Amino acid sequence: MSVIEPSSSAPPGDAAPDVDRGPVAPVARVAFTPLPPSAVELVGGFLGRLQQANSAMSVPRGAEHLEREGTWRNFDNVAKGAVGADYHGPCFEDGEAYKWLEAVAWDAGRTKSPTLLDWLDTASRRIAAAQDADGYLNTFVQSGRRAQRYEQLAWDHEIFNNGALIQSAVARFRATGRRDLLETAVRVADHLDRTFGPGRRAGTCGHPLIEMALVELYRTTLERRYLDLARYFVDVRGHDLLDPTHAYGDAYHSDRIPVRDTVVPEGHAVRAVYLAAGATDVAMETGDTELLERLQLQWQHMVEQKMYVTGGLGSRWEGEAFGDPYELPADRAYAETCAAIAGMQWSWRLLLATGEAKYADLIERQLYNAVLPGVSLDGDSYFYANALQLRAGAVATDSRMAAAGRQHWFGCSCCPTNLMRTIASLHSYLASSTTDGLQLHLFASARVNADLTAGRVAVAVRTDYPWSGNVTVEILQSPAGPWTLDLRIPAWADGATLRVADQTVAVAPGTYAHVRRSWAAADSVVLDLPVKPRLTAGRHRSDSTRGCVAIERGPLVYAVEQIDQEQDVAVDDLLVDPSVLDEEYDADVLGGVPVVVAGAVVAGERVDAATVRHRRVRAIPYFMWANRELGPMRVWLPASSPLS
Amino acid sequence: MSVIEPSSSAPPGDAAPDVDRGPVAPVARVAFTPLPPSAVELVGGFLGRLQQANSAMSVPRGAEHLEREGTWRNFDNVAKGAVGADYHGPCFEDGEAYKWLEAVAWDAGRTKSPTLLDWLDTASRRIAAAQDADGYLNTFVQSGRRAQRYEQLAWDHEIFNNGALIQSAVARFRATGRRDLLETAVRVADHLDRTFGPGRRAGTCGHPLIEMALVELYRTTLERRYLDLARYFVDVRGHDLLDPTHAYGDAYHSDRIPVRDTVVPEGHAVRAVYLAAGATDVAMETGDTELLERLQLQWQHMVEQKMYVTGGLGSRWEGEAFGDPYELPADRAYAETCAAIAGMQWSWRLLLATGEAKYADLIERQLYNAVLPGVSLDGDSYFYANALQLRAGAVATDSRMAAAGRQHWFGCSCCPTNLMRTIASLHSYLASSTTDGLQLHLFASARVNADLTAGRVAVAVRTDYPWSGNVTVEILQSPAGPWTLDLRIPAWADGATLRVADQTVAVAPGTYAHVRRSWAAADSVVLDLPVKPRLTAGRHRSDSTRGCVAIERGPLVYAVEQIDQEQDVAVDDLLVDPSVLDEEYDADVLGGVPVVVAGAVVAGERVDAATVRHRRVRAIPYFMWANRELGPMRVWLPASSPLS
Repeated sequence: MSVIEPSSSAPPGDAAPDVDRGPVAPVARVAFTPLPPSAVELVGGFLGRLQQANSAMSVPRGAEHLEREGTWRNFDNVAKGAVGADYHGPCFEDGEAYKWLEAVAWDAGRTKSPTLLDWLDTASRRIAAAQDADGYLNTFVQSGRRAQRYEQLAWDHEIFNNGALIQSAVARFRATGRRDLLETAVRVADHLDRTFGPGRRAGTCGHPLIEMALVELYRTTLERRYLDLARYFVDVRGHDLLDPTHAYGDAYHSDRIPVRDTVVPEGHAVRAVYLAAGATDVAMETGDTELLERLQLQWQHMVEQKMYVTGGLGSRWEGEAFGDPYELPADRAYAETCAAIAGMQWSWRLLLATGEAKYADLIERQLYNAVLPGVSLDGDSYFYANALQLRAGAVATDSRMAAAGRQHWFGCSCCPTNLMRTIASLHSYLASSTTDGLQLHLFASARVNADLTAGRVAVAVRTDYPWSGNVTVEILQSPAGPWTLDLRIPAWADGATLRVADQTVAVAPGTYAHVRRSWAAADSVVLDLPVKPRLTAGRHRSDSTRGCVAIERGPLVYAVEQIDQEQDVAVDDLLVDPSVLDEEYDADVLGGVPVVVAGAVVAGERVDAATVRHRRVRAIPYFMWANRELGPMRVWLPASSPLS
Repeated sequence: MSVIEPSSSAPPGDAAPDVDRGPVAPVARVAFTPLPPSAVELVGGFLGRLQQANSAMSVPRGAEHLEREGTWRNFDNVAKGAVGADYHGPCFEDGEAYKWLEAVAWDAGRTKSPTLLDWLDTASRRIAAAQDADGYLNTFVQSGRRAQRYEQLAWDHEIFNNGALIQSAVARFRATGRRDLLETAVRVADHLDRTFGPGRRAGTCGHPLIEMALVELYRTTLERRYLDLARYFVDVRGHDLLDPTHAYGDAYHSDRIPVRDTVVPEGHAVRAVYLAAGATDVAMETGDTELLERLQLQWQHMVEQKMYVTGGLGSRWEGEAFGDPYELPADRAYAETCAAIAGMQWSWRLLLATGEAKYADLIERQLYNAVLPGVSLDGDSYFYANALQLRAGAVATDSRMAAAGRQHWFGCSCCPTNLMRTIASLHSYLASSTTDGLQLHLFASARVNADLTAGRVAVAVRTDYPWSGNVTVEILQSPAGPWTLDLRIPAWADGATLRVADQTVAVAPGTYAHVRRSWAAADSVVLDLPVKPRLTAGRHRSDSTRGCVAIERGPLVYAVEQIDQEQDVAVDDLLVDPSVLDEEYDADVLGGVPVVVAGAVVAGERVDAATVRHRRVRAIPYFMWANRELGPMRVWLPASSPLS
């Protein structure tokens, strides 16, 4: 059931475009309203330090990489009208610059760093200078390929790049109040609007993204044309418009089945999920509950049939695609970092639209286990694809393969820049509000405030999550009268309890615990989520999980790396004895983490009581793998006996 | 241990080029000498009918497809000097014409069909007419791309096409005695020899094949230059000569590691195995025992770590490549038909060189379970890739995918034409001779003769193999004095017996049973191979086989198709109860086959004694799958309890 109302029914004045908004700012009435970025501050803790590492290492290094790759020179050459100048990078290189710029915008809004503000000013000028008089902007095509404008929509990523530009411009406006880049983006959007749509040219981009971007531009400008164009770009797909004879097929471009008829995602995973997220935006703002329900069904089938335990999406290297149902190989998982980011974006929109906890659950799963594995602990190197297994003897024939280890940059560096903008805006996913309540979706040490109808509430969250499941929420400020504090209880949190005013109550996993009362400053609630290790049994239809177990602890999926095992034990030959499962904090492992220790049997080794008693397998959080010596790794391990 | 002697030590007169030779005709002394094609006649039976279907349906349909695709028009346009004429097909289209022509040659040699002889004459003329004055011949490059001659060696398949031309010319010469196409091929080879090699241009083709072809040309002409050039093309690989920066990596072109240093095959499977087969030819003729030993080691590792139970090779769609060790997904098996054919070619060369039965065992496994699945029972449609599983809900986004079903032709139709030439020359793989013995490698109703030192021997083989394991060999003609009849005892044939002169003896699987005696006409031996169903347990390192069983019967791997199961039983949810295993001949299934019936459990279904007793899974030979209604299929099935 949907709780959205179309934005057209609300007078624009009710939701005027404004600065200090996060990456998604619905105009329509939705179940949960995102908080302004300024209302959420990460204060140390796991996510806070993560955001700091992103700001201190990833984003500045990104600036160096983009400069070295010639990404900005492409804009400068076009601005200068240089004829015959080399274009640098693949055709979607502009998009990577924009994604990086979006990260800079969110960071600048948060930190007010003069360096970042200066980068924004400079980049906005360089971008604007490259724009054609009619609003067109794509340096790949503008660099000696002008006859090719919109001629290769399936492959040239022109509209995709435009989408990334709009997103970064919206971010710059919302984070800093500056309109310069937004004006460039509006000219780009107007050019698209004059070119494509009913009664104009039929077409869309091989790579979705524009849909989300145009809805955000609509939300920022309240210019209805952008929403209509977004809806057009959603509806036009699925009619074999885009190079259907290519070897990857029309599913590659999300062009085999109309979005409204798609019951399970297929084709290129990033494309499919960006499209679904954009369609969700359209459904939200147009009040299209039927479309929203179809998207919820598609999401459900994705989770049940086409998602890794990590939340990773896309199992085929060929076409970077979703596989068939239950086709989820561990060793050849593609699970592109960008696909998991797209998944977070989609789930966030569905969460706002419906208020259902399962969407926030998936955001958490994907953040910790499918997005974060994509960046090294120091924020300086990346995985593009995220395998769930690295075998002994594996050979990397491609820099994206696990056997190649983490890379500082890629020829196509969508994942690093996408990670940057996601982590830079991570505080926007923490909480939301309704007229009389505050919802906490992700647990992190933070200060959060929200303006309810009754007045401003402010809380301090203190936790060592995800290492500990203990979360304290202290009320810092409250209006008179009752309001509701909603705390997400993750689906894995069997046995969770909540202590409110000296009363401890059990809370049900997979829902929000609603605490409605009159609050006073210094009141607190304490959530206790049991994060002890658990084994998850694999599904029998999936070859890599049949008869296997995955180790999880709280929100974290664990992995077994060769470096942590006994010398004579090959990870490739390990079986888990499910009867033994414990954890120990090891200060020497990866700066200190809870290491999960399980019973183990070595395949082919004669099993006797004495041997079994002494074999152990040691597991670390999956997102931390490949930060030491690269070697065999597994997320799914065969069980020596069925999980009871 | 190698038993080969270099051909250079044998005076050419000892092994003069001659007609009536099969696809491989070593000049060097080898362990087993192939028989002339005229010495082996398939007389009905399974393989005989297969060869008939190939002649009656596949080859004539191939002619129609090639004409319709414009393959021959490419030659005609070049011959006419047409400027600006369209070239039809991919750059390796010439090669498909040549492979088809090789099939015609073997068939013509066997049947003396005037139609086929006429096709050979016509095609030979069309090909010769397109050849440039300097000997160069590649209609793709000659059609308006002459500046591109040998400029894109990694991708343009020029030398690959030349290799296929040489092979078809050698076949035409050996099968019909006509030299016309051979002269064209010699001019092509001379052009290559003037262009490439030490002191000339460094380079080779992205796609191996020329190595085998040049050795065969050497064997046919005794022109040593061609053997030297073949050795050069073998040795030049593995030094990053071929577009190493491409996304598929240098392994794709078999160019990452020199052949002599390769201990396990990698990269594009067809390329890797063609190269290995060509290198084996070079080792054979140059007496390079060190190289031969490396190739035997590589073969052994391929079988142990990188081969499907069917003999299928290559597990990755991405780059059509071998995966990492034990990376053998069932659903996404690529297992290109051509790769299995290449495997047969490689094993045949190793068998001739060494006389070891394991190579003939693999020829049999690949023929029945990795080559034949590639063609429909009526010989009119094909699989390019050979999945070992088709799941419910699978979507074909590519005509090569199992979910698309068999296809009459492909944009790249290497597999159909490769199948044609393989089946047309299949009788050449049946037997071989030594100075005082005859070896039977494959079992089929046939007449076979061989000229031993003591004189001519002739035998009649009568069998309903592979359906029955009973094989009778009757002596039709024998010289005086003893000679040895060698019968391969397949590795799977536990309990095999041999009856000779009223004595029945047990024979050891995985070897040749040597029967040495003085023979008289009407003597016979009867081999009894137990072909009752058996279960093969999967390897724990391979996800698709861990905890699973495959059903085999004699040389045939079996598969479970949805159409043969009880209505309420989904193949995707079947588990095999290994305690029940039987067979029943079913005249209604696929024209009558032994159906294997095993106990079954349905995953998730409550198991009680009564239910288990009544569930059954029915399996048919894997090579026959997808000849009825297309639906879910599995070769590997999870076992409900470990195989004892």
